[in-house]
Amino acid sequence: MQVYDAPIRDMRFNLEELHAEDGFGDLEGFEDFDEDMTSAILEEANKLCRDVLLPINWSGDQEGCRIENGVVRTPKGFPEAYKQFCEGGWAGLTVDQKWGGQGAPHSLGKMVEEMSCSTNLSFGLYPGLTNGAMVSLEAYGSEDQKSFYMPKMANGEWSGTMCLTEPHCGTDLGMLRTKAEPQEDGSYKITGNKIFISAGDHDLAENIIHLVLARLPDAPPGVKGISMFLVPKFMPKDDGSLGDRNPAVATAIEHKMGLKASATCQMSFDGATGWLVGKENRGLEAMFAMMNTERVAVGIQGLGVGEIAYQSSVYYAKERLQGRSLSGVKNPDGPADPIIVHPDVRRMLMTMRCYNEGSRAVSAWVARALDAEHAAKEPEARERAKDFVALMTPVVKALFTDLGHEASHMAIQIHGGHGYIQETGIEQFARDARIAQIYEGANGIQALDLVGRKLPDRMGRNLRSFFHPVSQFIEDHEGDEKIGKMIGGLQQAFGALQMSTGHIAQKGLKDPEEAGAAATDYLRLLGFVAMGYCFANAAKKSYAKLKEGTDEKDFYEAKIITARFFFDRLLPPVMAQMMAITSGKSSMMDMPAEAF
Amino acid sequence: MQVYDAPIRDMRFNLEELHAEDGFGDLEGFEDFDEDMTSAILEEANKLCRDVLLPINWSGDQEGCRIENGVVRTPKGFPEAYKQFCEGGWAGLTVDQKWGGQGAPHSLGKMVEEMSCSTNLSFGLYPGLTNGAMVSLEAYGSEDQKSFYMPKMANGEWSGTMCLTEPHCGTDLGMLRTKAEPQEDGSYKITGNKIFISAGDHDLAENIIHLVLARLPDAPPGVKGISMFLVPKFMPKDDGSLGDRNPAVATAIEHKMGLKASATCQMSFDGATGWLVGKENRGLEAMFAMMNTERVAVGIQGLGVGEIAYQSSVYYAKERLQGRSLSGVKNPDGPADPIIVHPDVRRMLMTMRCYNEGSRAVSAWVARALDAEHAAKEPEARERAKDFVALMTPVVKALFTDLGHEASHMAIQIHGGHGYIQETGIEQFARDARIAQIYEGANGIQALDLVGRKLPDRMGRNLRSFFHPVSQFIEDHEGDEKIGKMIGGLQQAFGALQMSTGHIAQKGLKDPEEAGAAATDYLRLLGFVAMGYCFANAAKKSYAKLKEGTDEKDFYEAKIITARFFFDRLLPPVMAQMMAITSGKSSMMDMPAEAF
Repeated sequence: MQVYDAPIRDMRFNLEELHAEDGFGDLEGFEDFDEDMTSAILEEANKLCRDVLLPINWSGDQEGCRIENGVVRTPKGFPEAYKQFCEGGWAGLTVDQKWGGQGAPHSLGKMVEEMSCSTNLSFGLYPGLTNGAMVSLEAYGSEDQKSFYMPKMANGEWSGTMCLTEPHCGTDLGMLRTKAEPQEDGSYKITGNKIFISAGDHDLAENIIHLVLARLPDAPPGVKGISMFLVPKFMPKDDGSLGDRNPAVATAIEHKMGLKASATCQMSFDGATGWLVGKENRGLEAMFAMMNTERVAVGIQGLGVGEIAYQSSVYYAKERLQGRSLSGVKNPDGPADPIIVHPDVRRMLMTMRCYNEGSRAVSAWVARALDAEHAAKEPEARERAKDFVALMTPVVKALFTDLGHEASHMAIQIHGGHGYIQETGIEQFARDARIAQIYEGANGIQALDLVGRKLPDRMGRNLRSFFHPVSQFIEDHEGDEKIGKMIGGLQQAFGALQMSTGHIAQKGLKDPEEAGAAATDYLRLLGFVAMGYCFANAAKKSYAKLKEGTDEKDFYEAKIITARFFFDRLLPPVMAQMMAITSGKSSMMDMPAEAF
Repeated sequence: MQVYDAPIRDMRFNLEELHAEDGFGDLEGFEDFDEDMTSAILEEANKLCRDVLLPINWSGDQEGCRIENGVVRTPKGFPEAYKQFCEGGWAGLTVDQKWGGQGAPHSLGKMVEEMSCSTNLSFGLYPGLTNGAMVSLEAYGSEDQKSFYMPKMANGEWSGTMCLTEPHCGTDLGMLRTKAEPQEDGSYKITGNKIFISAGDHDLAENIIHLVLARLPDAPPGVKGISMFLVPKFMPKDDGSLGDRNPAVATAIEHKMGLKASATCQMSFDGATGWLVGKENRGLEAMFAMMNTERVAVGIQGLGVGEIAYQSSVYYAKERLQGRSLSGVKNPDGPADPIIVHPDVRRMLMTMRCYNEGSRAVSAWVARALDAEHAAKEPEARERAKDFVALMTPVVKALFTDLGHEASHMAIQIHGGHGYIQETGIEQFARDARIAQIYEGANGIQALDLVGRKLPDRMGRNLRSFFHPVSQFIEDHEGDEKIGKMIGGLQQAFGALQMSTGHIAQKGLKDPEEAGAAATDYLRLLGFVAMGYCFANAAKKSYAKLKEGTDEKDFYEAKIITARFFFDRLLPPVMAQMMAITSGKSSMMDMPAEAF
C-alpha cells in the first residue's frame, strides 16, 4: 500500500535549525515567509499531495496516457487535480511576484516539490517542466516574451516543455538536426523530430509553450550552432486568447518502464512557428539555465520517491506478522511478530531513513544557497552560494536519484513477494524512480560535470565553498564528548575525499580519462561526506536540544540514532571507494573494445 | 536490443581449467561427459536458447499469460518452444538415466540453465519447477511414486510445482492453514488457498504435479506439523493416461512487475486428491530438499540475466555514437565516437563483466561440489563437498541475484533514455531479475541462514571447506611475480572476512540479533572473497597459458584485465563492509518501533 504523510517535522528541522549557521546570513525579500507562514504552507501542500495527488498515483500508472484523435489524454483525475493545483497557487510557488507567482524561497519550494514527487511523480512532471521553462524564459527571454508568457505559465494556465532530444542524439546535442528558418515577420519555421519530450502534449493546460533547440540555416556545426525557440501549441493572439493550432504535434507516446501517467511524447515540428529566445547560436546556454534548476529538481525526485518508499515500508513492517523476534517474542497475542523486529528489515528501514534524511539535509543546504545566490546581503555570501550550487548540482542530481532508486528496491524487498505484485503499489516506486537517474543528463554525465568542470573551475573555488565549512566543523568538534566518534568517521571520510581530489587534480590534468575513470565513485564519496557533515551537525543540535530540555525528545533521539547508523553502516564502504578512485584508469580502459 | 550468444569459451574455462585442482578429484559416473561431449552439449544448448527461446522473450513479456475458460494460456510460441525443449531431452538433462534423464553432471547442467535464464527467464521457470519437484520426489517419494511420476517429468510430458505460500505466510511457513484429510483409500483430500505459485497452471505440459504443503488434522502447530502431498492436475490412470480433473485450480494469475510470461498463479485446492510424500509432519524437510537445489538455480537466474544484460550493453555501446573520446577522436569518419570509449560506460561494462565472470566461476565451483557430494571417489571429498554446498547455497542465491539485478540496471543506464523504453527490451531484464532476490527465500533470509545455521553448524566445519583452500592459495602465492598484487588484495579481504566471522561467532553466540544485524553485509563479503579467490586463480592460470604460448591470447589477456578490475575497483568497498559488520547491532536496533 502506498502510504504518505509529509515529514513536516524533519522539513522544519532542516529549514529552521540545521542550516542556521551556514554563513549565507539572512536573506532579503522573503520576509513574508516566516516560520508560521512556512509551516502553514507545508501543511497545505501536504493536504494537497496526500489527499489529491496520492489517490491517483497508482491508478495513473495502471491507466497510463493515450492519444485520442491526435490529443493526448492524461489518466482519470489528472485534469481535476491539476486544476486544484493551479487554483491553490502552487504552479508559481517560487516564481517572482511580478509575474503573479508567490515569490517563496527555493528552500521552501524544494520541500513542496519533495511532497509532490513522493505522492505522484508523474503528475509533478507537468508543472515541473513549466517551472524549468520559466527559468529559461526569465533569464533569456525578451521583456515582451516575459510579460506575455510568464504570468500565464506562473498560474498554470499554460504549461511548458523542453525539446532537446532527437533519436540519434541525447547526451551529445551537437548532433541535433531540427531546423529553424527565419521568416520575414521575425518569426521562424521550426522543422524536425524530437523524442522523449516530457509533457509534450496533454489535456491539463489550455496551451503548451515548447522551448525547442534547433539550428539556423547558417549555424556552425556542433553545440555552438544551436539556438532556442519558443513554439506555442496554439498560436496566441495579442489578447492572450488562443488562435490557430501550430504544427507542433505529439505523434506518439513512448511506452516506458514507469512514470506512465506522464506523457512522454515523440514530437513532430512541421514548419511550426516559433520565436528566438536569447541570442542566435546561444541556445545551449539558455537551455542550461533551465537544466541546472531541473537537475536539482530531479535530485528531489529521487528523495521524494525514497520518502514514500520508506513510509510505505514502515507501515507494512509494522502490520505484517511473520516469524518471531530473535530476542524473544514481541507480540505474544498474535500468531507472529511484526517484521519490523527483524534485524535485516531494520537494516533496510534505517538505510532508507538515512538516505532520505541525509538527502533532505543536503538539499535543504543547496536550496538555501539557491536563494542566497540572489538574496544574500553580502556580495561575498552570494558568490559563495553560487560556487556551492555549481559544485553540488550534479551531486544532488546523481546521488539522490541513485539513493532514491535503491530505497525503492528496499521497499520491494521488505514487502517480499507482495512487493513484486502490481496491486500493492510498491513496485511502481522503483519503475518511476528509475528514469530520474537518466534524464536531465545521465548520472555518469553528472559525475563528469563534477570532476571535469566543477572541480577545476577557477582553481577549485567551487570546492572550497564546501571543503571550508566541513573542515572547520571537524576542527571545532574534534574529540567532542557527544559527537566525537562521528567526527572521527567524518574526518576519515573527508581525508579520503581530499586524497581522491588530489588524485583527480594531479592525474586528470594530464589525462582527462583519469578524471573520467574516477568520476562516479568520486561523486558518491563527495555526496556521502556532505551527508555525513549534515548528520554530525544534526546530532550536535539534537544533543543540545536534549540537554536544554524539549518536549520533542523522541524526534531528537531518533535523529541521533539515524546519524549513528549512517556513520556505523553506510559511510565506511563509500569511504573505501577512495581505493577504487586512486587505482587509476588502467583496469577500466585497458580492455580492447573487440574483447568485450 | 536483446543480444545473446552463450559465453561458451568462458564456460569451458570454468569447466576444464579453473577448478581442476579443487580437491574433489575425478567424479564417478560422468565418464560419458568428456570435453568433446560437453562442448557439443553447450553448443546445442546455445542454439536452442539463442534461436528458440530468445525470440519469444520480449514478446512473451508484452503479451503475458491469461486465463481463458479456466485454463492458463502462455504467450505465443511458448508451447512450441517447450515441445522443442522436451524433444531435445533438455527437461531431464541432469536427471538420473534410470528415470529416463541424461544423467549429466550439475557442473554442466548449471551452464545450460544459465543460458536459458539469459534468453528467457520466464520460460525457464516451467522446466525449472519440474526439476525442483523431481529432486524432492526422488529424495522422499515412495518407490511407486518415483517409478510412476519421474519418467514423465524427466521427459517434460508432465511438469511440476511447489505450493508453499499462502496469503498470510511466505517466509513463516509455520502459519500455513491448508488442510489434508486422510481418506480410506490411503489418499488425502487437500483444501486451501495458495498464492504466488510459479507454473501453477499452463498449456505446456499435459499434466501438472503439484507438491503441496498442508496440515494433517492432528498435526502439531508450527513447522513441525506440515506434510507434503503430491496433487496431480489430472488424476492419472494406472496406465499413465489422464483421468478426471482434480479440483486443484488456478483461480487467478498474479499481475507482476516482470516475469510476465511465467504464470504465477493463485491456486485453490478444494478437496483435491493427493498422496503423502515422505513421512507425516516432515513436509518441510522434503520441501527443503527441493528448495536447496532451487536456491542454487535461482542464483544462476541472477547470473543469466546479468550475462544478457552485459552482452546487450556491449552491443549497444559499440553501435551508439555519442560524444568524443576524452583521449582523442576514435571514429573520425563518424559524427561521434561509439560510447564504449567513455570511461563511465567502461566502468559499467567492466563491472557487469566482473559480476558475470565472478559469479560463473563461483557457481561452477559450487556445481562441481554438488556433483562431488555424490560422485567423488573419496568419502572425505564427498563430505567436504557437502559442507561446501551447504555454506555456499545461500551465498549463490543471494549474491548472484543481487549482482544480476545491479547488472540489469547498469544495462538500462548504458542505454540511457532508450533503456527506459519498453521496445528496446532492456528494462525487461531489470523487471524479470528483480523477483530472484525475493523468491525461494528472500535474500535477507539467505543471509540469516548463512550466519545463523551454516556458520555455527558443527563448530564451523562448513566454513573450513571454504577457508582452507583460500588461505592455502594465499600462502602459496604470496609475493607471486604476476598475481602478487591481487593476492595482497585477497589477503586483506580474507582478513576482513575472518575478523567479521570472529565478531559474529563471539557476539552472535550471546545475542542472535548481533548475528542477524551482520548477516547481509557478511554474506556479500564472503561472496566477494570467493569471487576474488576465483579471479586470482583465473589470472594465475591465464598468465601460465600466456607464458607457455596459446592461440587464444585475447581470451587470457581479457581474463587478467577483468581480474585486475575486480581487485582495483570492486573488492575494496565490499571489504570495508567489515567496519559495518563489526559496528554491532545497536544503531540498527535501538530505534523504538514507534519512532519509525
